[in-house]
Amino acid sequence: MLALQSFMVGHWVDQTDQVVLLPCAITGETVARLGKSSPDANAMRSFAKGLGGPALRAMTFHDRAKMLKALAQYLSERKEALYDLSYHTGATLNDSRVDIDGGIGTLLAYGAKGRREMPDDTIYIDGEVEQLSRNGTFLGQHVCTSLLGVALHINAFNFPVWGMLEKLAPCLLAGVPAIVKPASATAYLTEACFRMMIESGLLPEGSVQLICGSVGDMLEHLDCQDVVSFTGSADTALMLRSNMHLLKNSVRFIAEQDSLNATLLGPDIGVDDPEFGLFVKEIVREMTTKAGQKCTAIRRIIVPSTMLDQITDVVTSKLEKTIIGDPRLEDVRMGALVSRSHRDDVMAKTAMLGQEAKRLGSRADRINIVGADVDKGAFMAPVLLHCEDPDGANIVHNTEAFGPVSTIMAYRDFDHGCVLVNKGGGSLVASLVTNDGSIARKAVQQTACWHGRIYINNASSMKEATGHGAPMPQMVHGGPGRAGGGEELGGIRGVMHYMQRTAVQGSPHILTAVSNSWINGAKEIDSKTHPFTRKFGELEIGETLNTDYRQVTLDDIEHFAEFTGDTFYAHMDEEAAKANPFFPGRVAHGYLLLSFAAGLFVHGDPGPVLANTGLEGLKFLKPVSPGDSIRVRLTVKKKTRRNDEYGEVRWNVMLYNQDNDPVAEYELRTMNQY
Amino acid sequence: MLALQSFMVGHWVDQTDQVVLLPCAITGETVARLGKSSPDANAMRSFAKGLGGPALRAMTFHDRAKMLKALAQYLSERKEALYDLSYHTGATLNDSRVDIDGGIGTLLAYGAKGRREMPDDTIYIDGEVEQLSRNGTFLGQHVCTSLLGVALHINAFNFPVWGMLEKLAPCLLAGVPAIVKPASATAYLTEACFRMMIESGLLPEGSVQLICGSVGDMLEHLDCQDVVSFTGSADTALMLRSNMHLLKNSVRFIAEQDSLNATLLGPDIGVDDPEFGLFVKEIVREMTTKAGQKCTAIRRIIVPSTMLDQITDVVTSKLEKTIIGDPRLEDVRMGALVSRSHRDDVMAKTAMLGQEAKRLGSRADRINIVGADVDKGAFMAPVLLHCEDPDGANIVHNTEAFGPVSTIMAYRDFDHGCVLVNKGGGSLVASLVTNDGSIARKAVQQTACWHGRIYINNASSMKEATGHGAPMPQMVHGGPGRAGGGEELGGIRGVMHYMQRTAVQGSPHILTAVSNSWINGAKEIDSKTHPFTRKFGELEIGETLNTDYRQVTLDDIEHFAEFTGDTFYAHMDEEAAKANPFFPGRVAHGYLLLSFAAGLFVHGDPGPVLANTGLEGLKFLKPVSPGDSIRVRLTVKKKTRRNDEYGEVRWNVMLYNQDNDPVAEYELRTMNQY
Repeated sequence: MLALQSFMVGHWVDQTDQVVLLPCAITGETVARLGKSSPDANAMRSFAKGLGGPALRAMTFHDRAKMLKALAQYLSERKEALYDLSYHTGATLNDSRVDIDGGIGTLLAYGAKGRREMPDDTIYIDGEVEQLSRNGTFLGQHVCTSLLGVALHINAFNFPVWGMLEKLAPCLLAGVPAIVKPASATAYLTEACFRMMIESGLLPEGSVQLICGSVGDMLEHLDCQDVVSFTGSADTALMLRSNMHLLKNSVRFIAEQDSLNATLLGPDIGVDDPEFGLFVKEIVREMTTKAGQKCTAIRRIIVPSTMLDQITDVVTSKLEKTIIGDPRLEDVRMGALVSRSHRDDVMAKTAMLGQEAKRLGSRADRINIVGADVDKGAFMAPVLLHCEDPDGANIVHNTEAFGPVSTIMAYRDFDHGCVLVNKGGGSLVASLVTNDGSIARKAVQQTACWHGRIYINNASSMKEATGHGAPMPQMVHGGPGRAGGGEELGGIRGVMHYMQRTAVQGSPHILTAVSNSWINGAKEIDSKTHPFTRKFGELEIGETLNTDYRQVTLDDIEHFAEFTGDTFYAHMDEEAAKANPFFPGRVAHGYLLLSFAAGLFVHGDPGPVLANTGLEGLKFLKPVSPGDSIRVRLTVKKKTRRNDEYGEVRWNVMLYNQDNDPVAEYELRTMNQY
Repeated sequence: MLALQSFMVGHWVDQTDQVVLLPCAITGETVARLGKSSPDANAMRSFAKGLGGPALRAMTFHDRAKMLKALAQYLSERKEALYDLSYHTGATLNDSRVDIDGGIGTLLAYGAKGRREMPDDTIYIDGEVEQLSRNGTFLGQHVCTSLLGVALHINAFNFPVWGMLEKLAPCLLAGVPAIVKPASATAYLTEACFRMMIESGLLPEGSVQLICGSVGDMLEHLDCQDVVSFTGSADTALMLRSNMHLLKNSVRFIAEQDSLNATLLGPDIGVDDPEFGLFVKEIVREMTTKAGQKCTAIRRIIVPSTMLDQITDVVTSKLEKTIIGDPRLEDVRMGALVSRSHRDDVMAKTAMLGQEAKRLGSRADRINIVGADVDKGAFMAPVLLHCEDPDGANIVHNTEAFGPVSTIMAYRDFDHGCVLVNKGGGSLVASLVTNDGSIARKAVQQTACWHGRIYINNASSMKEATGHGAPMPQMVHGGPGRAGGGEELGGIRGVMHYMQRTAVQGSPHILTAVSNSWINGAKEIDSKTHPFTRKFGELEIGETLNTDYRQVTLDDIEHFAEFTGDTFYAHMDEEAAKANPFFPGRVAHGYLLLSFAAGLFVHGDPGPVLANTGLEGLKFLKPVSPGDSIRVRLTVKKKTRRNDEYGEVRWNVMLYNQDNDPVAEYELRTMNQY
């Protein structure tokens, strides 16, 4: 039997007060014991704020992203031990993969996104520079900075590993230390994984702490630099969010709670379509994976009335064939619920649903279990109910039986189907199986507002589709209304929950200094030698090369047209060009200007510049007529280390004509050696 | 005397219950009377949801943006009448301009941003397509859709016009109807402006309603499709946000409340610098504009200890010279506070501040008033206090005297200055006067987390700077902690408070249909005739031209180098190119590929394509060696109407080599005739 410890203020601490015993979901035997002593909230918070926060904030987003990647690799090498423990929660190996590999995958995804989509800096640039003045001497730039407090992560029992890691990944990437509070029932698995994280030595001291037990009066100590992120029941969420201290101090509160997720079959799908089988397969999978103990599982199945019988038959038959039992056995498709008390709760909720929906199928309540004792484990057969009057029904749209339970109902037409989907009152996800783009758009128009995610699948995507129930790190997870009104994940969006957005206003020079990204109008530093001869580390933000002029002749234009084949009339036909609202007559090709510009600013000799990888935001501002001259201003805008050999340099490129009017602007990207 | 009416369910309604009389701030005479009967919340909400919401959602973002612009023009032509009423609030003409012209300017800014930064569609695309699968058959795209409910805007007394319009602009642009509840004291000005909006006939029926009086039990009727946006005191905000119905239903709640905004003088500024005068000027302006009744006004002045005396002297002297009186008079710089009862409150708070800070200057409490009776109007002299022990102080950092009152204090070093700024516990804005970019960055690193906005000014930006106290429609307005934890404005960010973000997952074809924007991998529609010969309206999303191949020879590369002058070694020097980690040997110039690509896909004859205006997201994916061939796939990605003659077409351009490997990708932009 494991004696779970908390990790507080840098030490593993025994919890000996109010001990509860945690049973194995399969055998009922005690797996671990958990004490519920109240932690010293002030000490934990001070430790996080005094050590963890400063250490994380001293790292750039790239440093933190690399840390997440290393952590993922460390855990991945040790995941077998976690699988072993996970069986006690009732999980099959597949279920454990969702939890454990899913959690590790989330770390990896944030590791990758942090390096790709965030700067190698401690200040995040949010959006474009805003023009606040006519002459551009006063501008605006939104930035995001790490909150100075601590995140309190209160997790649900069903995903002891993923639940911890999906909250930690964006939080640590944001530079904010966390205190993790797992749900009691499966805290032993969270504790084991957390122990590995500490043993890895990869996380700075104070950046993570663990409370196996109660959070005590922690909420009363938080302020606006802290975040509470909760996953669990609506009742607990309400209790937490109505805490007057949190409300009074505008403490950020994110909730992910009950959800009556629906799946909808499009009116275009017939029994013979491959989508029919796909629809059934997703239903059965969502009902049986984790024994239906997923916030995102399908609770309501909404189908055309003409298809009701066929779908009911096939789903019922598949559910009846589902092998339930000891999740260690290879044939077993569904393990146990987390505990017998939880199963009793699911049974009670199922009975409530029974007031409005009829239970289908012949399977008795006394079920056959493979390799385990039905009277000791928390086993339950999947339950499919049919609701005949979904418009009049209430309970089926608002009661979450958190197990392998789902209710099927019929719609008259697709609009009616969308109305039924929305009756969930705000859900994490709805899915739709359709081949018809216009049906997909209609579903989004009519139901997106009530959902955090809409999952659309058909034969063309089914091989690679990630599953109705799978929150992806790239996509937001959360939902309005009943689902808690929160949002997690969604790539960098999820990081922002742990950062403060601030509008910064100032001169171009000041904003350049703040953002480490050169802004047009800021000081230009005269490049003593050609910037292409200077290594990554030698280049300064704002370093500028001003080239000589080159005239663009009519011969050049004609030659370029002939050489490239680009004989667009605006370049070739004076009459036609004049008739065009944009041009005074024949003008130079935009690509000719780009090419001449490169000719003007490129330094040909081998040097630190390795390659031009692309360009961004090219705008042609003014036409260039034959006889005009152009010159280039090339300025170092931003530098980002990419690997051990080279980093990316972004250059602001401005082309001017002989009257000093800007004729084109773009951002050039090169890779430069250190 | 005006008898204020509410505008409910499409009608102007007299309010006769619990009538209160609203006094003129200058003369104390009654300006208007206001009834406080409770509105029929259900009827108003149904009207908004039944008529206003559907009408707004039937319009695209561009339609709504044009509506805002037209509304701004309508109000602008009638603003003199609003100025006249505004004097009764105690406002000078300058104050009224901040309120009335500021509000109209916000409508205009949202009108412009809506057309420039949002699609001509009803679904907003949030961020990039997310790659969720290896082969790209299953992808993700975040979209935002209009909430289906109603926004309840509860406004403060100090900006009766701006307060209404700054909330309405993003809300209506989002497609959400609103119910406006002005603060009683100045409701007559809001009502007058609202009346103009209704008379304009520019807003669809049901899109706006007005409650002059009490909101009654409106909160109890809201759900997750509704939004409450509140500006006012922290006490009222707490009362509203702790409403159990709101909490239980995850109703969105945005608050902008008390704020102890600070201004900070950089350590680099001396008495002889132009920034010294600038710093003093901003302080005096913020203390006296609107008689200091601005959420963003400077409440705390934080200066180097060496500068304390000089600044105190100059500010005191300027404040003493401020002419106070009837705001209609030309010389008067500061009018009255909104009411005598409010002035009493400010006086009481000033007395509280007096416990920790000493009042400076010689001006007596009995002040000289120009053109008005000091015993009838709500006049008050500006008050500057000095706090000697800002580290030990509490009240000066957390008590907002909402009038012309500010406390000065000294810092030892800049870090200490930042600590003092943050002692406000979360503010709307802090300002900093400095010439030093590293001081600016330090201030952002150390204080941004506690602020919604940081305003940095110096001699280079002072001519065009928008003012410490001016929230700009482009920049977020709001702040953490004491300031309410809310966010408004910030351009399109502010629109999102009235929309639901949803992660949509599906095949490229499905996501293209949902977003009206072609995604790589979606169906290509074979262009029957060259797409450059087809008008804007004739082009279909997904329409594709596949060109023939063109070989790129070594001669081409050498010729291009010679012609343009771009003799970069990767194109010219086999040895050096081979040594480069990106290239197998000499390769074609990226700009040569772009130019040849144009030659391949351009149709030369005059036609609907008017101009190439730019390109986005150019990535070179694989080098092209001499002897390789390239071909182009050109696909219509997105179409956006721009004016009466033409619209923008965005094309996805893919370049492939002879092995069908992508070698470059970009988005081309053209303007095409209808």
